[in-house]
Amino acid sequence: MSDVGIDAVEIWTGKLKLDLAETFAPEKGDDPAKYTKGLGLFESSFPDTYEDIVTMGANACKRLMERHDLSPDDVGRIDVATESSFDNSKPISTYIAGCLEQTFDGDFHHANKGERKFACVAGTQAIDDAYNWIRAGRNRGRSAIVVATDTALYARDDPGEATQGAGAVAMLVSEDPDLVTLSDAQGYGSADETDFLKPNQQFPSVDGKRSVQVYLARMREAVEDYESVAGDLHPDDFVYAPFHTPFPGMVRKAALLAYRHITRDTEIEEELADAIGMQPRREEFDDDEAFSEAVSAYTDDLKGTDRYAAWYDATIDPTLDISRRVGNWYTGSVHIARIAGLKRALSEGRDMTGERIFVASYGSGAQAEVHHETVQPGWDEEIAGLNIDEQVADRYDLTFEEYERVHAAHDHSKDRDFEEFTAPEDEFVFDGWGRMGERKYRYVE
Amino acid sequence: MSDVGIDAVEIWTGKLKLDLAETFAPEKGDDPAKYTKGLGLFESSFPDTYEDIVTMGANACKRLMERHDLSPDDVGRIDVATESSFDNSKPISTYIAGCLEQTFDGDFHHANKGERKFACVAGTQAIDDAYNWIRAGRNRGRSAIVVATDTALYARDDPGEATQGAGAVAMLVSEDPDLVTLSDAQGYGSADETDFLKPNQQFPSVDGKRSVQVYLARMREAVEDYESVAGDLHPDDFVYAPFHTPFPGMVRKAALLAYRHITRDTEIEEELADAIGMQPRREEFDDDEAFSEAVSAYTDDLKGTDRYAAWYDATIDPTLDISRRVGNWYTGSVHIARIAGLKRALSEGRDMTGERIFVASYGSGAQAEVHHETVQPGWDEEIAGLNIDEQVADRYDLTFEEYERVHAAHDHSKDRDFEEFTAPEDEFVFDGWGRMGERKYRYVE
Repeated sequence: MSDVGIDAVEIWTGKLKLDLAETFAPEKGDDPAKYTKGLGLFESSFPDTYEDIVTMGANACKRLMERHDLSPDDVGRIDVATESSFDNSKPISTYIAGCLEQTFDGDFHHANKGERKFACVAGTQAIDDAYNWIRAGRNRGRSAIVVATDTALYARDDPGEATQGAGAVAMLVSEDPDLVTLSDAQGYGSADETDFLKPNQQFPSVDGKRSVQVYLARMREAVEDYESVAGDLHPDDFVYAPFHTPFPGMVRKAALLAYRHITRDTEIEEELADAIGMQPRREEFDDDEAFSEAVSAYTDDLKGTDRYAAWYDATIDPTLDISRRVGNWYTGSVHIARIAGLKRALSEGRDMTGERIFVASYGSGAQAEVHHETVQPGWDEEIAGLNIDEQVADRYDLTFEEYERVHAAHDHSKDRDFEEFTAPEDEFVFDGWGRMGERKYRYVE
Repeated sequence: MSDVGIDAVEIWTGKLKLDLAETFAPEKGDDPAKYTKGLGLFESSFPDTYEDIVTMGANACKRLMERHDLSPDDVGRIDVATESSFDNSKPISTYIAGCLEQTFDGDFHHANKGERKFACVAGTQAIDDAYNWIRAGRNRGRSAIVVATDTALYARDDPGEATQGAGAVAMLVSEDPDLVTLSDAQGYGSADETDFLKPNQQFPSVDGKRSVQVYLARMREAVEDYESVAGDLHPDDFVYAPFHTPFPGMVRKAALLAYRHITRDTEIEEELADAIGMQPRREEFDDDEAFSEAVSAYTDDLKGTDRYAAWYDATIDPTLDISRRVGNWYTGSVHIARIAGLKRALSEGRDMTGERIFVASYGSGAQAEVHHETVQPGWDEEIAGLNIDEQVADRYDLTFEEYERVHAAHDHSKDRDFEEFTAPEDEFVFDGWGRMGERKYRYVE
């Protein structure tokens, strides 16, 4: 059985930009550093009024297929991961395939289409399903397309409003992939949680503090589960660790705890001992509280070490380069983190072939999944073909008043007759509703 | 690699019953035969006011796990298929696992939970994902639970109102299964259709006539796709053909077209030729219209043959035994059809081990999937353990006025403070809303 993994990737950002420091902070009366330093976010992407999860996903797929000279016959599966769906029955993948059939010869009538939902972790789940489909030998030589597409919008004045974003990541899963192979080994941490949910509503109910705790707890469980099958992790095992990135500040917290975990019982812990002591062990303490306080103190000290800072700068910081500029893309978030890391490597002229990355996905509700990936020959050409920097630079810079209109334009409960801010060109656009209440799309030359 | 398939199954019906002939037809001023003969439906199941997709799914899972002496550690994956979800982010599988953790020792923290959506075909897709996960060797010896759970409700006075239903099917997917193995071969027929959808709404928009056409068109594509990899189908290849059953009348249409297709170029076509001629071939006709008329005429004649009637009575009719009494269960529908067939075989004392069944799933929007299954030793004990007949017999028989209250009780847009009709016992029940808007559940002894 040949290796299976991600063969190609494409990103499509919403075409509007909200500058958090320049536009959002002044209107809220906040210090811009609350966003740029606290959350680690500079800008959020928003969809223009003719964009939505279908157009962004279809446009990413079109570019992916064209760059790789794919026809519909090459694709046996199209799975969409989203938590922004607008239909309780018909999956977004059928709309995306319908768009693509407008511009490609042939059709996807023999492709298995689907939709997965589990907050932000569903994109990774859909990749896993595609991987398993190929490994099970049912793909007939064809590849799968996985699309992670979301409009991450919060109710106005919700604390989450600063962490919004919108965009799609399309990924081709194939045998003998050009980008990364996936490990069979996986770790899961999963529990019935109510940190973030959308009960019969478009915008989420969020318990922000609880969500951070649950992210960290489920991630720890997932890493322990992974280690139970793949052996203990060590910082030398991987060069990048893309995490689910609701905002970079969340990843800072998770990375520090992960580093503490994977350096325990290693030479790194011993080398750091002169400066900050050894990690506290439960048996050394009379009660949980004392132990917990000691762990917190050690973690604070660890954060201040040059060794940790160097690891963070090399392994984590590069994965945040895109998120900082586009905000939270929910299901797409961890996948733009992977790409951001590889983009940094490419810009530094680094040879990544054969290197490992450790991918840590998370969805509220709640579940973390971790696995490792091995970078393949061809990764550099694939990453060099992306135009996400140009897309990000070309976004229309919204005033606050315009942002308010855009937010309302995408609010399902409101009447939506708003002028667009940008002119669509060579892309799929939303084209109004049909008689069954379905959304319609057309391609604009 | 050992065989993989469905190892165990459990059904949970909503605990209320609407009698279509006795209660619904008189109120609508209709001849009862409109429902019992036209649609082929006698009764619909409805959830009591303390039931929903979570309780029905969790109760089916609990019985499944208890009957097979399973603990949470035996389960590495819980996937829910539904088009009745009440949350746009948090998957129903987390709620179901949360219920089960109330009554079983241990937890599902290392199980991959998810939710699939594609109208009524998502249950079969979730089974396929579980099958592939095991075939890919990532299950660590564990099984997957797939739950197809739906409350199929239509707006009051919608033509679909007569085809409602509610229930859950829980299936255990394992290596060396006791019930059926699944074929690697699959056929797909899939297109971007708007026959039935739920755009930001609980109750569907339905184009009933179009939905029948799309069902038949996608099913034909799926069969052709299957035959392209598995060879031409022949009626002797399978003893039952469970179809997705929105109502038995739909399956009558589909079965006739399927029989015409699979008898073409066989000895059956020749043996029938004396009575009804050979099947029309396109090349014998000047235009599509003349060809189409000839095909319709042949199909009508075929329907009247004893040969077809015998095949239908043996192969299709048994699969409708449960649907006739419970209505449309959306994602669960094709899976109760499989069980109904095997139940009939058991009641007739038939030896099914090694026999094949041909399973034809469909979801509006639209996609059909077909594959075959091979019945395994142990099937009879598994089917004998079901208590669905008792559940169906025990349902509370609603008056029309009570039906109206039940419908309103499950309408998300309405205030829902309704008294229950039955007393819950040894089951999970809905227990109100939490502070985040989440639904809460408890186990009633």
